[in-house]
Amino acid sequence: MPRNQQILLDKRPQGAATADDFRLVTVETPPLQDGQVLVRHHYLSLDPYMRGRMNEGKSYAASQPLGEVMIGGTAGEVLESRHPKYAVGDRVVGMGGWQEYGVVDADVPGALRKVDVAQVPLSYYLGAVGMPGVTAWYGLTQIIDPKPGQTLTVSAATGAVGSSFVALAKARGCRVVGIAGGPEKCRYATGELGFDACIDHRAHGDLKAMSRALKDACPNGIDGHFENVGGYVLDAVLLRANAFARVALCGMIAGYDGAPLPLLNPALILVNRMRVEGFIVSEHMQLWPQALAELAALVAAGKLRPRESIAQGLASAPEAFLGLLRGRNLGKQLVKLI
Amino acid sequence: MPRNQQILLDKRPQGAATADDFRLVTVETPPLQDGQVLVRHHYLSLDPYMRGRMNEGKSYAASQPLGEVMIGGTAGEVLESRHPKYAVGDRVVGMGGWQEYGVVDADVPGALRKVDVAQVPLSYYLGAVGMPGVTAWYGLTQIIDPKPGQTLTVSAATGAVGSSFVALAKARGCRVVGIAGGPEKCRYATGELGFDACIDHRAHGDLKAMSRALKDACPNGIDGHFENVGGYVLDAVLLRANAFARVALCGMIAGYDGAPLPLLNPALILVNRMRVEGFIVSEHMQLWPQALAELAALVAAGKLRPRESIAQGLASAPEAFLGLLRGRNLGKQLVKLI
Repeated sequence: MPRNQQILLDKRPQGAATADDFRLVTVETPPLQDGQVLVRHHYLSLDPYMRGRMNEGKSYAASQPLGEVMIGGTAGEVLESRHPKYAVGDRVVGMGGWQEYGVVDADVPGALRKVDVAQVPLSYYLGAVGMPGVTAWYGLTQIIDPKPGQTLTVSAATGAVGSSFVALAKARGCRVVGIAGGPEKCRYATGELGFDACIDHRAHGDLKAMSRALKDACPNGIDGHFENVGGYVLDAVLLRANAFARVALCGMIAGYDGAPLPLLNPALILVNRMRVEGFIVSEHMQLWPQALAELAALVAAGKLRPRESIAQGLASAPEAFLGLLRGRNLGKQLVKLI
Repeated sequence: MPRNQQILLDKRPQGAATADDFRLVTVETPPLQDGQVLVRHHYLSLDPYMRGRMNEGKSYAASQPLGEVMIGGTAGEVLESRHPKYAVGDRVVGMGGWQEYGVVDADVPGALRKVDVAQVPLSYYLGAVGMPGVTAWYGLTQIIDPKPGQTLTVSAATGAVGSSFVALAKARGCRVVGIAGGPEKCRYATGELGFDACIDHRAHGDLKAMSRALKDACPNGIDGHFENVGGYVLDAVLLRANAFARVALCGMIAGYDGAPLPLLNPALILVNRMRVEGFIVSEHMQLWPQALAELAALVAAGKLRPRESIAQGLASAPEAFLGLLRGRNLGKQLVKLI
């Protein structure tokens, strides 16, 4: 069996996460038992939710135990199988974690699924046609539930979730305004992803400036917002929200490192008769097939082809992850392992 | 036609509202036109939403123009009618405002309705079987939507909304915990209104103390919350909320006088996958008949018989209203005009 490099969570961050919180180890891959499959991971997915899991105690994801392999989505190829449903060479997606190889109990629900790479690149099953894509789909269709012609906003607009969100929302006839960090991301948002407008939060770094920029970009107000970040962007959205606006609360990445970020004026939820709803997409597995089918169709039709940021080799995962938390990636952040 | 005392909004409050913001005037009642009804008001309803209307600009109710009669719900008796559907002596409820008599265009939708005082006292149509009761019903059934056995909390527990809320929630098999100001109100909440427990916010005046009191009173956590006040009580509720808890946001009275009250840790909405929804009951008129029928049945069955705080005479309305904002009333605050 192959030797397997793994990255473990070594320490809980004090404030901002650092590379020192992780540890690279090499272990032997155990021989397969009946019902197990050996997967060689081609791609590791890096996602903001992982930062929440590094903390102790209550987060929107369960805490990650110290000394264990960091959890994470993986896409790869079956190298060896002792399960009747999987054959050598099958392309598969699972939650293999930050390691080169995974030994998977293939009967555990959600542990592994085969994917079709004819029209959808393998790596996309970790992004646009995977958890981030379904996250965008859930927030859009189950919480925001927009009507054609309505104006929607999304923060972290060029990330894996944001880029799926705009494709799904444009398909429903909405005006979609992104919020992203820096002119390069904003050009990418409007030039490639299909956003109608994009606001650079680095150029609008406080509530007043963001609120004014939203007013310009959303002359008819905001009917729905998908929140990945939190902080003053959400405060500004509430100031521009129309009556009965909905906010899908998916991430509060701005607050993961330290003190809670307050919401300045929650009375606006009442004034605007809004609905603000948090969700975790893994709690709605029954909707994934429907969501994945729509996302795969958009990719096949060329209407959802977001860029990816790809780091090379498992050892690069911690730095790539810290870069993701700081918004250094453009599009879905992956680690290529092969 | 009778001479009519009125109270006008004279100034917009700077900070806290004062009696000086109002002005008492006496005017002639104009003769009736076809389709109009002259109503003698027996009761004027005082409600927290009126404070929002005294401010300029965006609130959860439209701004009240200066120099006009303060808006408000009224219950009274038809003195004269030039409308075929109303006869002298009919008991009616409407939005007559802070005045002794009202000349009503009875065809305007929502302007006037006849009520049956056989089993429900006239004044209750301004409280338990009126707007406050329907408000409690809407938040409970349309937003919180509880299951039997779940734990619900409500702030301003002994007010007109809170006292209807507990009756409706107990009828659905819930554990209901109130939050009210002072030992007298808490005794009334558990002794008469049917609350399972009541927390005195004066004895638990900060987040830590309130959070601990909620933990004691809600050993299984909080599944639904009806918010009338805002501020640290809402922060504490979020700390004790269960997964998928719902918050019906009905009032933020704590913030009406001045600077916005922040929500300390909105990330908890995500962590707990909560829904927080604001509403204004007058936007859901189609549900009122169903709500009023249930509330009237509870009153007729003796399961909803809240106390009332009754001020005497129109001139007492401003002070009674300011007392309401400070929580000096016990139960529904009314002004008796006759």
